Amino acid sequence: MSKGDADRANVSRRGLFGAAAALAAVGASLGTGALAALPEAQAPAAGGAEPFWGAHQGGIVTPAQLHTYFAAFDLVASKREQVVELLQRWTAAAAQRSAGQPVQAAGYDADAPAADAGDLVGLPPSRLTVTFGFGPGLFSKDGVDRYGLAARRPAALVDLPVFPGDQLVEAKTGGDLSVQACADDPQVAFHAVRELARLAYDIAEIRWVQSGFVAGFGKETPRNLMGFKDGTNNPSVDDPAAMNAVVWVGDEGPGWMRGGSYVVFRRSRIFLEHWDRMKVGFQEQTVGRQKHSGAPLGQASEHDAPDLAATDADGNPVIPENSHVRLAIAETNDGAKILRRAYSYNDGVNFTAERWPPWKQGMEFDAGLLFVCYQRDPHTGFIKIFERMARFDMMNQFITNTGSALFACPGGVAKGEFIGQSLFDTV
Amino acid sequence: MSKGDADRANVSRRGLFGAAAALAAVGASLGTGALAALPEAQAPAAGGAEPFWGAHQGGIVTPAQLHTYFAAFDLVASKREQVVELLQRWTAAAAQRSAGQPVQAAGYDADAPAADAGDLVGLPPSRLTVTFGFGPGLFSKDGVDRYGLAARRPAALVDLPVFPGDQLVEAKTGGDLSVQACADDPQVAFHAVRELARLAYDIAEIRWVQSGFVAGFGKETPRNLMGFKDGTNNPSVDDPAAMNAVVWVGDEGPGWMRGGSYVVFRRSRIFLEHWDRMKVGFQEQTVGRQKHSGAPLGQASEHDAPDLAATDADGNPVIPENSHVRLAIAETNDGAKILRRAYSYNDGVNFTAERWPPWKQGMEFDAGLLFVCYQRDPHTGFIKIFERMARFDMMNQFITNTGSALFACPGGVAKGEFIGQSLFDTV
Repeated sequence: MSKGDADRANVSRRGLFGAAAALAAVGASLGTGALAALPEAQAPAAGGAEPFWGAHQGGIVTPAQLHTYFAAFDLVASKREQVVELLQRWTAAAAQRSAGQPVQAAGYDADAPAADAGDLVGLPPSRLTVTFGFGPGLFSKDGVDRYGLAARRPAALVDLPVFPGDQLVEAKTGGDLSVQACADDPQVAFHAVRELARLAYDIAEIRWVQSGFVAGFGKETPRNLMGFKDGTNNPSVDDPAAMNAVVWVGDEGPGWMRGGSYVVFRRSRIFLEHWDRMKVGFQEQTVGRQKHSGAPLGQASEHDAPDLAATDADGNPVIPENSHVRLAIAETNDGAKILRRAYSYNDGVNFTAERWPPWKQGMEFDAGLLFVCYQRDPHTGFIKIFERMARFDMMNQFITNTGSALFACPGGVAKGEFIGQSLFDTV
Repeated sequence: MSKGDADRANVSRRGLFGAAAALAAVGASLGTGALAALPEAQAPAAGGAEPFWGAHQGGIVTPAQLHTYFAAFDLVASKREQVVELLQRWTAAAAQRSAGQPVQAAGYDADAPAADAGDLVGLPPSRLTVTFGFGPGLFSKDGVDRYGLAARRPAALVDLPVFPGDQLVEAKTGGDLSVQACADDPQVAFHAVRELARLAYDIAEIRWVQSGFVAGFGKETPRNLMGFKDGTNNPSVDDPAAMNAVVWVGDEGPGWMRGGSYVVFRRSRIFLEHWDRMKVGFQEQTVGRQKHSGAPLGQASEHDAPDLAATDADGNPVIPENSHVRLAIAETNDGAKILRRAYSYNDGVNFTAERWPPWKQGMEFDAGLLFVCYQRDPHTGFIKIFERMARFDMMNQFITNTGSALFACPGGVAKGEFIGQSLFDTV
C-alpha cells in the first residue's frame, strides 16, 4: 500500500464516521418518536464516541455500555520514569481509540509490525471508554517503595477487609494498575486492553482480566442472571449533586484524586443451578422485590420507595430483615450510598463439588455478577454497606465472591496531560 | 400475583411483541434505503424472531448473529425413552424461546420454582436460533449400544482424525449431544442453554460450553482477532443450489439427516501476543490477503478471485504456496467446500509458558477463533481440506487447536414432531 493509498484510506475512514454520525442522527430522531413510544422495545445500538478528555474519567457516570473488559496489571518496572512513560502512552492511546482512531495513527507499513491490531477497521467507536485506576502496589509493594510514592498513598486506598464468605482466587484479585474498557461491542472493549497491554511490555504485565455484559438495548433497568432488575435504586448519573456527594472525590483530596473516584471490583459467582430451583416467592423474599415488576415487596412499581416499616397481619416485616434490598439501602446504612455499575459475567462451566445436599459433582456454570461500584471513599461506601451484607444477606447462600480489588481512579485528564500526572509531580 | 395479573402480563407481552414487530418493519424499510447507502455504517441491531420450524434447522444458513453459546452434553440416561423425552422437551422449549416466549408459558406462581429464569422479560427474541446435533456417543459409547441406535450411526459421523498440532483438552472436546444457541444478545444465547440444561437433569449433563462473538453490526465481512476479514470466500447462504451442494444432506441419507448437516467445532487459540509483533507484510503473506482491504494478494478488491497462478518478477507465486487462502480454497482441494460460521472467543488470560524464545512465562490471552463449519459430509468437507492445512498452513505457528467435536445435525422439525424424531422410529 502506497502513501497515497493510506491517505485515501484515511479519507474513507473520515467519510465513514461522517456517515455513521448521520445514521446516529436518524436513530436519535427515531428515538424521540417511534422508539420513545416503545420503552421496552430494542433501541438501535449506539456507535458514537464518548469524550475522553475532561474533569472526570469516562466509564464512571457514562451510561453503561453493553460490554466490558476489565484488566488488572502488575508493575514490573524498577523506575518511576518507566511508570510515567507507561501512563503517557496509555493516555494517548486511550484518547485515540475512544475517538475511533487507531491507537497510533502511523499509517500502513508492510515492513513493520502494525501499531494497531487492525481488527476494528470499519467499526464505529462503539462508545468506548477507558477508565484507569491505581492499586496499593503502585505506592508500595511487599514493603518496598519502588517509585517513591509510598507517602502519597491516599488513606481511602485501603486494603479491603476479608469479608465472611469470601473465597478469593489470587488470579482474580488485586493488582497495581487497573484498566476498565467499556463499549457496545465486545471486540472494541477487548481491543483497547490488548493495545494497552502491548504498550506496557517490560513495564507492566496483565495480572487478571474479566469480561462482562449487560442484556438488552432498551431503556429498561437490565436484568441480571438471577432474573431480577439490577440497579433500580442507583443514584442518578444525571444528578451532578448526587454524583458529587456519592462518587467524586472533593477537597478531601489528594489533589490528583480530585474529581476521581474509588472503584471496587468483585467477581461474584452465582450458583444458578440452585437459584433456578427456588420458588419464585422465596427468590422475592431474598431480594426484597417482585421478580417481574421489580417493585419493592408491598409496593406496585419498580421505582416506588421500599416501605421498610410495613408489616403483614402477623406483624412480620413485608420486606424481610435479611433481604438484599433492606441491607443495601441507604436508610439502613446511615445514609451510605455507592454508584453501582455492574455487569454479568459468563466464564463457561467448570468442575464443581457442591457444598450441600445432594452434593452433586459435575460441570456447573461459572457465571454471575461482575460487581463494579464507584464511591468517594470506600470506608463510607462499599465497606460500610458490605460488611453487614456479607454476614446477613439471604442472597449469600447463592453467591461466592471469588475475586476482589480496589483501585483509586484519578480525576479526568486535560489535553496535553497524562492520567494521574500530578501524583508524579515532585514536591 | 393473581391469575388476572398473569393474564394482563401476557396481554402486555403480546403487545410488546407487536410493537417490536412494528419497529422491525421500520428497521427493514430503513435497511433498503438509508442503511443500504451506508454499507460500512452500523445497522440497528436486529431483535426479531427467526423461524424455528421448517425443512432445515435454524442457525446454519441464518445470517450470523452477534453472539453464540455452544454446549456439548453427555447422556447419562440408561433408557432410550428418556432420550426421546429429552428431545421432545428441548424441541418445545427451543421453539418457545425462538419466538421470544418463556420456555414454559406457565404463568407466574410464587409457590413453585419458575419454569423460566426470567432474565429475558422485556427483551425481544434477538434472532435466537437453537441448533441441535448428535455426537457419536448417542449411537454407542465405550462399545455399549445404550439406546439401540448403534446400527443407525451414519458413515459420515466419523471420529475426527488427530491432526498435526492438535493439543486437545478433554474438557473442550467431544460430546453425545450439541446445542448451539446464537442470538444478537449474549444473555439470550446463554439463557437458551441454561433452560435446556435444566430440562436435561438426570438425562444429560453439560460436558463443555464455549461462548463466542463477532464484531460489528454492519454488512461488512467481520474481522477476526487477527485483524483480517474472515469469511470472504464463503459460499452464499442466499444461493440454495450452493447450500444443497455444500451444506445440506440429500438422498445419501439417512432419512433423519435429510436436510440436515454436519457441524465441526474447533476451538483455535491464537497467540495474539506473537501475531501482533509480526510485520504486516508477513501477516499478509501468511493469510494470502491484504490486511485492510481483504483483497487477495495481487488483486484490488476483497471479492476478487485469488489468482493462484500469478508470479512475481522472480517467478515466485504472489500468493505463497503455504498461505492460508491457497490451502483453504476449493481450487486446491478438488473443489471441496464448507460453510464457515465462525465466531471469535475470548476466555480471559491464563498462565502460559511459551514454546520458543524468548520463552516468556506469564499471563497470555486465551482468545482466538471458535471455528464452526457446516457441510454435507465431513470426509469431503472439513477433513479433506484441513488435513493438508494442519500440516502446511503458515498460520499454524500462531494457532493451537484445544477443542474439537463433530455432530450430526438432523434436518428441520415440523410442528408436532421433535428434533431427530425419525432416528428413533422403530423399523
